[in-house]
Amino acid sequence: MRKLYVANKNYSSWSMRPWVLMKQAGIEFEEVMVPFGEDAFSPGSQFKRTIGALNPNGLVPVLVDDGLVVWDTLAIAEYLAETCPDAQLWPVDRAQRARARSICAEMHAGFGSLRSACIMNIEADLATQGALIWRDNAAVRVEVARIVSMWSELLADHAASHADGMLFGRFSVADAYYAPVVMRLTRYALPVPAEVAAYLKRVEALPGVKAWVDDALAERDFLDFEEPYRLGR
Amino acid sequence: MRKLYVANKNYSSWSMRPWVLMKQAGIEFEEVMVPFGEDAFSPGSQFKRTIGALNPNGLVPVLVDDGLVVWDTLAIAEYLAETCPDAQLWPVDRAQRARARSICAEMHAGFGSLRSACIMNIEADLATQGALIWRDNAAVRVEVARIVSMWSELLADHAASHADGMLFGRFSVADAYYAPVVMRLTRYALPVPAEVAAYLKRVEALPGVKAWVDDALAERDFLDFEEPYRLGR
Ligand SMILES: N[C@@H](CCC(=O)N[C@@H](CS)C(=O)NCC(=O)O)C(=O)O
Ligand SMILES: N[C@@H](CCC(=O)N[C@@H](CS)C(=O)NCC(=O)O)C(=O)O
Repeated sequence: MRKLYVANKNYSSWSMRPWVLMKQAGIEFEEVMVPFGEDAFSPGSQFKRTIGALNPNGLVPVLVDDGLVVWDTLAIAEYLAETCPDAQLWPVDRAQRARARSICAEMHAGFGSLRSACIMNIEADLATQGALIWRDNAAVRVEVARIVSMWSELLADHAASHADGMLFGRFSVADAYYAPVVMRLTRYALPVPAEVAAYLKRVEALPGVKAWVDDALAERDFLDFEEPYRLGR
Repeated sequence: MRKLYVANKNYSSWSMRPWVLMKQAGIEFEEVMVPFGEDAFSPGSQFKRTIGALNPNGLVPVLVDDGLVVWDTLAIAEYLAETCPDAQLWPVDRAQRARARSICAEMHAGFGSLRSACIMNIEADLATQGALIWRDNAAVRVEVARIVSMWSELLADHAASHADGMLFGRFSVADAYYAPVVMRLTRYALPVPAEVAAYLKRVEALPGVKAWVDDALAERDFLDFEEPYRLGR
């Protein structure tokens, strides 16, 4: 049985991607929650000892499938796509698949300013903070502009072919890969055009995403190092 | 015909990966050199206008195959693996393939301290600078320790099965992905154990790597923003 090791759902954006991917695509797995804890990133922490025993990299997510350990989100997505071909996790068309992999690889290494200024915090309303970031942080504006133009182009290209209105028509790895960006854009209330706002709503309504968000809301954790913008819950 | 857009071979570590991958695996392609130039990273530069017209991300490498544009190194590697199955770019065994993808995804998003402290500069002897970095930069030491333990484990696991002595026995995407790390470890003369030193030598001796290095040495460019440690050639 597949086991997916994840951290706090309210905060852990990388954990969210493969979890939502499997949930939404109907791939069965067992979740193993390893919460960060206040000392998570120090070498001897409970988190580092538990995850480090599986993945020398010391990061979540980690997938363990019958003893085989796969780490790093993109490698997990490729492994799932290979081992669950019926789920069609990548677009079926070769050119569209190459495009989907390009934008996922871009996400994997990119958007550093958005990720650090607007760290994921699903339960929080950070609209005021978002307005200040938007006013002051030009790098965030550039990255959001890139995301908006990427999404708008994909949505326009695939609107005719599929009613689901995901980035490649049907749900794919690409939507799971950008789901934490959806969380950031909405919680920080960053300005986006209408077609993108509609896509944000559709992603929030996916059962796989709703299930993650519901769990995040139920956690009620508050970790100082994930909370640059709030004093408490 | 495949076209690969790359930047200066002496400096562009991301360009090196798919170029070495194709060259070493015998996949034909045409190279398109788009040098950085002194103003490379400013929005209106020649570099940004040329690359931005293909890849809105504005980064090299970019692969164009009969009009299909694939960008970001990992997506290019997956595309080549799919379209050139005979080249066996990923390990044939599923578990080993998952492991290879894990370490490539780890490289794709990681090792930020090594990458920024020891930027790639193939023609330079930066041993003195390397010794200072090694003494003063704990994060670089941690990242090199991770790379050393990853490589040592892989080399030990595959030594018996294949004489080539690459990370997964035969040459694969993994060796191409870490080739720029080989350049850094050697040019900055960072300390590594004997089995890793032997792997560095084997990688430098690969015809695909030698071809890139020879081109890099022939360039004789000097770009200030890539040269924190030298005043001239
Ligand atoms: N490139 C990695 C990134 C994973 C990552 O950064 N995970 C975070 C949680 S979202 C983590 O484990 N942080 C612990 C730490 O930094 O020590 C992947 O895609 O899996
Ligand atoms: N994640 C990208 C990284 C590519 C990258 O950073 N390329 C550098 C050259 S090695 C570049 O184009 N830099 C231009 C810039 O930063 O404006 C990939 O894997 O292709």
